[in-house]
Amino acid sequence: MQNELSQTELQDAWPLLLSSDRLEGFKLLAQAEADDFFLSLKARDQAELLLVFPEGERRLWMRLLAPDDAADVIQEAPPAEHAGLLALLDDTTRTEVAALLSYAEDEAGGLMNPRYARVRPEMSINEAISYLRRQARERLETIYYVYVLDAQQHLLGVVSFRELFAAPGEKKVQEIMHSEVVTVAEQMDQEAVSQLFAKHDLIALPVVDAAGRMKGIVTVDDIVDVVQEEATEDIHKIGGMEALDGPYLQIDFAHMVKKRAGWLSALFLGEMLTATAMGYYEHEIERAVVLALFIPLIISSGGNSGSQASTLVIRAMALGEVRLRDWWRVIRREIFAGFALGAILGTIGLTRILLWPTRAQVYGEHYALVALTVAASLVGTVLFGTIAGSMLPFILRRLGFDPASASAPFVATLVDVSGLIIYFTVASVILRGIIL
Amino acid sequence: MQNELSQTELQDAWPLLLSSDRLEGFKLLAQAEADDFFLSLKARDQAELLLVFPEGERRLWMRLLAPDDAADVIQEAPPAEHAGLLALLDDTTRTEVAALLSYAEDEAGGLMNPRYARVRPEMSINEAISYLRRQARERLETIYYVYVLDAQQHLLGVVSFRELFAAPGEKKVQEIMHSEVVTVAEQMDQEAVSQLFAKHDLIALPVVDAAGRMKGIVTVDDIVDVVQEEATEDIHKIGGMEALDGPYLQIDFAHMVKKRAGWLSALFLGEMLTATAMGYYEHEIERAVVLALFIPLIISSGGNSGSQASTLVIRAMALGEVRLRDWWRVIRREIFAGFALGAILGTIGLTRILLWPTRAQVYGEHYALVALTVAASLVGTVLFGTIAGSMLPFILRRLGFDPASASAPFVATLVDVSGLIIYFTVASVILRGIIL
Repeated sequence: MQNELSQTELQDAWPLLLSSDRLEGFKLLAQAEADDFFLSLKARDQAELLLVFPEGERRLWMRLLAPDDAADVIQEAPPAEHAGLLALLDDTTRTEVAALLSYAEDEAGGLMNPRYARVRPEMSINEAISYLRRQARERLETIYYVYVLDAQQHLLGVVSFRELFAAPGEKKVQEIMHSEVVTVAEQMDQEAVSQLFAKHDLIALPVVDAAGRMKGIVTVDDIVDVVQEEATEDIHKIGGMEALDGPYLQIDFAHMVKKRAGWLSALFLGEMLTATAMGYYEHEIERAVVLALFIPLIISSGGNSGSQASTLVIRAMALGEVRLRDWWRVIRREIFAGFALGAILGTIGLTRILLWPTRAQVYGEHYALVALTVAASLVGTVLFGTIAGSMLPFILRRLGFDPASASAPFVATLVDVSGLIIYFTVASVILRGIIL
Repeated sequence: MQNELSQTELQDAWPLLLSSDRLEGFKLLAQAEADDFFLSLKARDQAELLLVFPEGERRLWMRLLAPDDAADVIQEAPPAEHAGLLALLDDTTRTEVAALLSYAEDEAGGLMNPRYARVRPEMSINEAISYLRRQARERLETIYYVYVLDAQQHLLGVVSFRELFAAPGEKKVQEIMHSEVVTVAEQMDQEAVSQLFAKHDLIALPVVDAAGRMKGIVTVDDIVDVVQEEATEDIHKIGGMEALDGPYLQIDFAHMVKKRAGWLSALFLGEMLTATAMGYYEHEIERAVVLALFIPLIISSGGNSGSQASTLVIRAMALGEVRLRDWWRVIRREIFAGFALGAILGTIGLTRILLWPTRAQVYGEHYALVALTVAASLVGTVLFGTIAGSMLPFILRRLGFDPASASAPFVATLVDVSGLIIYFTVASVILRGIIL
């Protein structure tokens, strides 16, 4: 017993283990647990494990996988191994998997399972049930819905398994089937597929080609992974970097630094404009150093409000709540929001300077005018930040980029330069001839 | 025909319509479409629609809902309406819904459906199938797995519907059932439930009480919503605000501004420390205005690198990839990453100043020392930003707060003050006696 490891123990330790230790750990599982454990792994880990198995064992494990999962595993393995892994499958499965591999990983065809429950419209319920019992023995893994096809594989309708099961045995399938079916096109992007699932609350959706012929089903358990994956991508981009393509602790260090350094350097180059802008105002700063004190406060407020606005819009776009043509409704809301938020921060800033005990020493005798400059600049910067932050995702999407790239740091960088310009312009209006 | 509206048209227009227009639009749907449309709405919209229906029609629509969905609708309605809506249900369903309402909305009990397919272990396969056909006619909505219970409702095992269907009719259920079942505790948080689904790739999980008695099932279609909802919450927090509890374009304007103003003001108050810190360095700035030019560049680089690090850690925590006890492995990685990223930005900054055509005019005769100051400060600030950003989520979680509150703006604000201190300290070491 001492040698036996439980599935849960291994699952917990998994992320921390090296490839070789993983194989060791895996060998310590009882046979029944090993099967379950293998099937519960992500395709990436399954591929890794498969490739450290001795040749002879690989076949067994590959054949345990459903066609869509086998296709995922092959896609995760190095290209040189693809043909070898494919050859391990039985003939039928190999044909199915090869067909799946021709789709991109992130389109509906790449997610679909070609094995689904099918019946003919003219069958009676009793005939359909015994036909399904035969299919279940041979090749199905799951039955949620039964699809009604004609001889050319055109999708005519769908019946939920429960409905089929509850109907009187003598009725015909076509009498109980629903002929308005929500379908997915083969090339549909996985994010669009996940929005369809969210909209219709279904367990599976049929994939059809351009001629209406059924190719397979996408099931909602694959969609949970898609939703997580897409959210992770967006979150990484919102954080101001390229999306990592693996778990944080497992990803290669050099690879991670590369993904972060790219955006960080781009933002740095953009932010250099602030040094240039500051150069223009060097004389103003020399004459009134007090102005320099509020620079970080003002530009960061613009950045923060911009970050809020862009994040809201990015997420609403990803959920399909806001579309490109809604930009006008968004900007109208954000102009009001920007004014309101700017007024709140402006008031806090004004109060802070006017009530500060040592105001006259720190900010000079014209502290009230300085306070006014800061407050007015805050309204301007927050308003500008809000508008820029909310419109940037629209502009990016319109130009064909991912709106999630309108990250908090990107917006902040954009807004920093304009914040400086707003601040010094306001200052030159209010303070010209007094301290400037 | 002119009066008939298609389901898709209404779905598209839905977010833009007022309550009263929604009812109008809904009434224009054909009956069969109206049912589907109603069932496809979110609980929030179903509740809104129900409450504008005349009293007499409410009953019909309430009875269309599965118990878990009815419970969600009641939870979305104002408390004064709860009893009235509950009274519309038939006796059996009312009891089930009342039991569901006693769970919090975000725990497993609040997500579960009390109607599931059940059989006894000693039944033969043929007996089990005909027993299920009876259950299907009476009260089931879905059959994915069949649960094997004893007379006291203890969960003994599970059979997938396909397995039951494929097995020879004379075998006993207990011969083909799996007795190691992944279960969910009634009070388990919905985020933990969604992680279980992601880990095991299942369509449904059974909910059991502390004594191992089965209470219901949670199905993966509800989990897709949970996953989206949790990701939206995290993304809003990462953007530096409180999570909105509704779609962007539908949420009340004053409510939205409130959710944003809170964090924005808190960040503003924090950022005021930069004005205080700048006050300490006023004399340095007066003597060497050139130093002021690089302030935005340096503090924003710290903020950006901190934002990357905190976002990575927040997401990895939400996916269960990083746990509290992994902090040491994370900080080790981030120290190296911070050095590498700081060195890259430092090099870019150094090059930019040394190679700038008008360097001597803009930055003075000691431009090389200024460049060195900027570069060294960049390494320090980026390193500090990276460490602070990666550790803040751990600290927040350890203190019982949501790690996602370690937003890009929050981290940036924290890092801005320390960036100023690092910069002026480095400057005083390198430039003391020269231009300071």
